[in-house]
Amino acid sequence: MELELVDWLRSRIPPHPALIIPPGDDAAVLAIGAGQQLVATTDMLMDGVDFRLTEHDPRVIGRKCLAVNLSDLAAMAARPLAALVAVALPRSWPLDQVQAFTEGVLELAAQHEVALAGGDTNVWEGPLCVSVTALGEVAQGRAWRRAGAQIGDALVVTGPLGGSILGRHFTFEPRTRAALAIAERYEVHAAMDLSDGLLLDLSRLLRESRCGAELDLHRIPISPSAVELAARDGVSPLDHALSDGEDFELLLSLGQHDAERLIGDPVPGIHSTIIGRVTAGTGMVGRDVQGCLAHLPPRGYVH
Amino acid sequence: MELELVDWLRSRIPPHPALIIPPGDDAAVLAIGAGQQLVATTDMLMDGVDFRLTEHDPRVIGRKCLAVNLSDLAAMAARPLAALVAVALPRSWPLDQVQAFTEGVLELAAQHEVALAGGDTNVWEGPLCVSVTALGEVAQGRAWRRAGAQIGDALVVTGPLGGSILGRHFTFEPRTRAALAIAERYEVHAAMDLSDGLLLDLSRLLRESRCGAELDLHRIPISPSAVELAARDGVSPLDHALSDGEDFELLLSLGQHDAERLIGDPVPGIHSTIIGRVTAGTGMVGRDVQGCLAHLPPRGYVH
Repeated sequence: MELELVDWLRSRIPPHPALIIPPGDDAAVLAIGAGQQLVATTDMLMDGVDFRLTEHDPRVIGRKCLAVNLSDLAAMAARPLAALVAVALPRSWPLDQVQAFTEGVLELAAQHEVALAGGDTNVWEGPLCVSVTALGEVAQGRAWRRAGAQIGDALVVTGPLGGSILGRHFTFEPRTRAALAIAERYEVHAAMDLSDGLLLDLSRLLRESRCGAELDLHRIPISPSAVELAARDGVSPLDHALSDGEDFELLLSLGQHDAERLIGDPVPGIHSTIIGRVTAGTGMVGRDVQGCLAHLPPRGYVH
Repeated sequence: MELELVDWLRSRIPPHPALIIPPGDDAAVLAIGAGQQLVATTDMLMDGVDFRLTEHDPRVIGRKCLAVNLSDLAAMAARPLAALVAVALPRSWPLDQVQAFTEGVLELAAQHEVALAGGDTNVWEGPLCVSVTALGEVAQGRAWRRAGAQIGDALVVTGPLGGSILGRHFTFEPRTRAALAIAERYEVHAAMDLSDGLLLDLSRLLRESRCGAELDLHRIPISPSAVELAARDGVSPLDHALSDGEDFELLLSLGQHDAERLIGDPVPGIHSTIIGRVTAGTGMVGRDVQGCLAHLPPRGYVH
């Protein structure tokens, strides 16, 4: 079974213009554009922690394993280039499910023009464990960072937040194309992707940028899933939007003028909203529709 | 514990000239030399498969997880640049052992001037699972491949073989520096690292090169561990050298003249031996000291 699986996997790896030598030798060789820097990130996802094999479709599990890594590339405004996928497969996992998992990875890779530049397929007695490394490229010195937000900047998110646990944490679209389009047109001062909840992630961006922030709570875009979840658990939709993890939207800090242009002339595929501004100081405060201010703690998902 | 561990890990990441933006943002940014191509490989190692937490020193486990990946870079004659390390740590693993594991990775990285360009540290109820991606660079079109061996080439290995299970599969030195030195001086036609046993790996190189090989069995360098293991299990030392896995020496195919120069003017750190030659045809035959020929099956370690 195992050798057949590896042969099948190899046969499923499509050619890619950046893939000078495909996997099959001891390593793959990739072309990097002249004047480009390499962007690299890795994320490991595990059964029982990030998904449940007994509950979730293997295809969406595979998709997610790549998608979270592409989201990290988007957070740096990097063009995705390649992914390497290492898996420890439970011995008891049926072959058709392994194949569905693989197709989930391959489909998203094809959609984002990501080369499959390597893999390591193992079988063991333990639970499914998947590690993906994503590689991208960015023009020299042009990677977005968490540090760099400026006092007076507008804070922007690229989509509605909260309640992703109801399904969007599997189906979210990594904002790689949107990030490239924004980076081309606007001067983004700081950025990250929202993986652990808006307040917790924003607090990290602010710490790196040595700034504070004021959020207009009535402007936080609330996803329908946050409303649905709120109806079930009694936590408000706003609280879900502020602190639920795995939104995988981008959080951007850029000048007010650029932010207004971004809202007025939208980038395809995203719905950006100005949610507040960067301030002097260190904390986060929320302003409600009446103008009352309240301190916001950095709540979110701690791994 | 977990947050402290991540902070400790971050504090242990040394600066590196290629590491333009260190891990800490959503991804790391690396410089690639002008005219260089990127070489990428990934290997996952798992408790109960590649090592046993109950038996082996966590430091040598950590070292091995990086070393096998550096060996893959050496097999392509790539200069190591960076590694990304993702781990699923068993919740019950004591912190001092996690730290020893990490030190094992970091020490080898420092010895090979490899930047730590990313990590993902997870804790779960499953066994230890480690995935490393190694990145290197090679001048355009200069990566060694398995294809390319020419009829009449000498076959060379860079060290004694067999019995690595007695310890060398942890302590082996990845041949990255030797590979660069050889690539600089000689025209290597085909290469790979020996991970699954000489006969099995050679059969793969020959398949890619569409050639056969004749091995001088009395010239195969036999490691002391192969002799020790033979005394225990009754399999001959030569058989151990021919088919034991995890030697992590290089197998090279290069012109007879270059091969003789390589033996006569040794590259530091390795002891190269000519073990046979590339022939027309497709199989492998062994020639003993009396000149008798016998067919050699592609035996080795199948994952």
